[in-house]
Amino acid sequence: MSYYLDFREYLSRLEKAGKLVRVRREINKDTELMPLVRLQFRGLPEEDRRAFLFERVADGHGRRYSMPVVIGALAASREIYALGMGCHPEEVMERWTEALRHPIPPRLVSRGPVQEVIIEGDALERDGLGLIPIPISTPGYDNAPYTTATHWVTKDPETGVRNMGNYRSQIKGARTAGVFVYPTQHIGVHWEKCRKLGVPLQGALVIGGPPSVAYTAVSKIPYGVDELAVAGGIAGEPLELVKCHTLDLEVPAHAEIVIEGEIATDFLEPEAPFGEYCGYMGDRVMNPVVRVTAITHRKDAHYVGILSQMPPSESSKIRQIAYEGQIFKFLKYDCNLPTVTAVALHESSGSWGYVVIQMRRTNVSDPWRALMAASAFDATVGKILITVDEDIDPWDPDSVNWALSFRMMPHRDLRVIRGKGSMLDHSASPPGIIGHLPFPDLEGTSAVLMDATRKWAYPPVSLPKQPFMERALEIWKEEKLPALRLKRPWYGYELGYWPDEFEEEAQLALKGEHYRTSEKLATRRVYGVTLSGTPEERR
Amino acid sequence: MSYYLDFREYLSRLEKAGKLVRVRREINKDTELMPLVRLQFRGLPEEDRRAFLFERVADGHGRRYSMPVVIGALAASREIYALGMGCHPEEVMERWTEALRHPIPPRLVSRGPVQEVIIEGDALERDGLGLIPIPISTPGYDNAPYTTATHWVTKDPETGVRNMGNYRSQIKGARTAGVFVYPTQHIGVHWEKCRKLGVPLQGALVIGGPPSVAYTAVSKIPYGVDELAVAGGIAGEPLELVKCHTLDLEVPAHAEIVIEGEIATDFLEPEAPFGEYCGYMGDRVMNPVVRVTAITHRKDAHYVGILSQMPPSESSKIRQIAYEGQIFKFLKYDCNLPTVTAVALHESSGSWGYVVIQMRRTNVSDPWRALMAASAFDATVGKILITVDEDIDPWDPDSVNWALSFRMMPHRDLRVIRGKGSMLDHSASPPGIIGHLPFPDLEGTSAVLMDATRKWAYPPVSLPKQPFMERALEIWKEEKLPALRLKRPWYGYELGYWPDEFEEEAQLALKGEHYRTSEKLATRRVYGVTLSGTPEERR
Repeated sequence: MSYYLDFREYLSRLEKAGKLVRVRREINKDTELMPLVRLQFRGLPEEDRRAFLFERVADGHGRRYSMPVVIGALAASREIYALGMGCHPEEVMERWTEALRHPIPPRLVSRGPVQEVIIEGDALERDGLGLIPIPISTPGYDNAPYTTATHWVTKDPETGVRNMGNYRSQIKGARTAGVFVYPTQHIGVHWEKCRKLGVPLQGALVIGGPPSVAYTAVSKIPYGVDELAVAGGIAGEPLELVKCHTLDLEVPAHAEIVIEGEIATDFLEPEAPFGEYCGYMGDRVMNPVVRVTAITHRKDAHYVGILSQMPPSESSKIRQIAYEGQIFKFLKYDCNLPTVTAVALHESSGSWGYVVIQMRRTNVSDPWRALMAASAFDATVGKILITVDEDIDPWDPDSVNWALSFRMMPHRDLRVIRGKGSMLDHSASPPGIIGHLPFPDLEGTSAVLMDATRKWAYPPVSLPKQPFMERALEIWKEEKLPALRLKRPWYGYELGYWPDEFEEEAQLALKGEHYRTSEKLATRRVYGVTLSGTPEERR
Repeated sequence: MSYYLDFREYLSRLEKAGKLVRVRREINKDTELMPLVRLQFRGLPEEDRRAFLFERVADGHGRRYSMPVVIGALAASREIYALGMGCHPEEVMERWTEALRHPIPPRLVSRGPVQEVIIEGDALERDGLGLIPIPISTPGYDNAPYTTATHWVTKDPETGVRNMGNYRSQIKGARTAGVFVYPTQHIGVHWEKCRKLGVPLQGALVIGGPPSVAYTAVSKIPYGVDELAVAGGIAGEPLELVKCHTLDLEVPAHAEIVIEGEIATDFLEPEAPFGEYCGYMGDRVMNPVVRVTAITHRKDAHYVGILSQMPPSESSKIRQIAYEGQIFKFLKYDCNLPTVTAVALHESSGSWGYVVIQMRRTNVSDPWRALMAASAFDATVGKILITVDEDIDPWDPDSVNWALSFRMMPHRDLRVIRGKGSMLDHSASPPGIIGHLPFPDLEGTSAVLMDATRKWAYPPVSLPKQPFMERALEIWKEEKLPALRLKRPWYGYELGYWPDEFEEEAQLALKGEHYRTSEKLATRRVYGVTLSGTPEERR
């Protein structure tokens, strides 16, 4: 089966899979829309989350919009994300690895549906961005509507190499918007080069391409690698691009909406507050402003947004899976750690800070190589980094805490390192400084590394052996008890230490012959000893 | 309403509350019984767990037992535990505190139903413990059936002060059982005194009293305080006791079963393996042996057990709540830390290692006093200790990880300490030594302390304000979307940093007047600056 041509093909796939809620009543985009989707992130298990399609969108002043709004379609859950990748959830990590290792360059075509409708001239001046039903994400705190699934395409003015990245945009007027640009992000490199050249930076904001476009836009792909080629790698076929109407840039031919504009490089202007992935309101920051030159969109275009802010959210899910794939590929292939079996970023850390590396421990060094390499992957990714064994579910915080409790000894298995940075970590420095510093002092912020793999053989996991649990499962179903969602492990297994004698005794007990074991043990009595002696004394 | 007179009164209360599953089919106590109850601990949310009453119990050799078996009645969930305490779940911690501060001594009565049936003489010699349907907890690994809700009453042979503690007992023969005795536990102190006096230690194993008896038996109550008086403190009335049939000991008059015996003090004998709370099989250990002198029980007695082993389990839940109450009382009252609002032991650590202290931060010292005092509470309790603010749910690992990710800076807020001990932590030393050492070397094991409280004002939590989330909840219900279990926080709130100007802008945005904000911000443009300057330059 070939990959999705466009967002709407993907949307009907979601609906067939039972992953789409259609809301037909009129919904206020600024006060009702995002809170409704938010509820499922605070109140439903991840596997029950769905995408929401709002068919009739209005604002609080009687304005009705012709475009429907879709939220949650890209990454409301890992299952939805896998549908977007066109694979099973357990294949996502290897699919990402393949796409990064074998990108497929996009193909330029002469025309595409994204330019079926072109807004320019008077219509742009009068209505412009106001035609698009962009919701307020955090009503009561955000100072404007912001685009969220907001893929900015720019080019390096010197090399012509393209970049696409996800940078929020504050709607400032019919023809003006802010762009959140961090100096180390690739759009920031382009902006700075244009600033020195004394020219504005051309930028095209893409909304609603095939899901591969969104997945690559939010990921940390090295400078100079074309995200649109990695999107082709995900799809297994080249993405079709068209030339922009007013810019020397190319955008996905089958996107829903493209906002074309010039980003001024001669000044910065205050932007935000806007709710951020760290779970707190993002502070005011000085950012560039874009002057819109045209808006193009498909007939019956859908506005597509991501639910971001307090994790877990769609934003933490979409970033989680992309970063997991990239750190996994980095550790396994680039750092030559083939024993790494999975990387899990916890959404509770906004998919930035809490990183669990699942691996097969072969020696004392491998976990530490993995921890140090993962902490070096990016200044701002990784504040609490943990290695676990293959029998630990790295995404389940209880499973990881079980490993920390019984496989990690702090004085031996824990290190604190400095020289890290932070994007939106308010524990680094107090708020209130415009342009909040990522490095509060010359030693930077810090991370804690913990090796929670087993250092030696362990006794079996204390759960009934598999056949007994499977039999119990049959009885459970026959008795019509409530549906189970079993967590791993749900039966016992061995971990290296289980003497033959213990196995024999367990078998005797199952036969009801445990008195025989007791008779044997009675022959090993030791007389005249205390409880509190050394093991040898007690033995 | 007065407290439960006995276990069966409590059981009918559980059934009325919809918290009891009756299994009427014949169940094999050794291979089917515990695995069936286990499934709910691996596959259902805590609030859906119930107690199981097995009406028809057999073993694999055609033997049918007259006693029914009850598992999960004491602590399958926090809700069930609260029913057992006779209060609401949110009152449990203060109820424990009250009982510890105001114990009510028990009252001796001349007779009680626990002695309606007396097994001694030939019947004891021939059948004895074999009459009781004690299940195998971890079929395939355990070497015998063991009692689990197993409250041993003993007396200090010098002072006569009573102790009751929960110590597992391996069924070794019709009249013999092991007793797991740790030297620092109070039964261990009694045993050692008797050993020096050259006499056996009298012990009565109580099964199935009113739930207060089980709750105090598993807790860490200081030496010399009578657990049966604390049980009275929980009940708000004295517990009725009767004299044992063959011993100089008193036991709850309304218990289901009492096993009376003499614990030999002149020898130790190998005992276990048995599945342990740490999630691994407990190793072989040298332990005392009890010689049963009589078994007494009620007509139609119920055998009551606890599901233990791999956490979460009933054993980790019952210990969790008792320790939480005791550490809370210790910190708040004994250590003069009135700003402590809750203590949470995570079941993933077997309710031993992972301790979260919720408190109102008033200065830099209080969190560290709380962390150090909690780590000093007991050698073996507390390996990962964390302080959090009042808006963090200390029981929710995602909430705690959110706090660690954005309120804790490792180099400033984390310390590793030595001088701890461990009971069953295999990361301390390899298995295979009988009597596994709690202190592997002269510095002991270690703990990590982390202060994850906010050190300064933070921006608001990035969720829509309460009225918008409440309105969304109305729409959610009207649209008949799936039932929610909302996690805290589910709406935004302020944390000290939110300038008036930001509030005004948020209000303008709700009115659709955000272009006015943009016009204001445009007057604050700064020309000729880079993105990567200092905040002042960028400002």
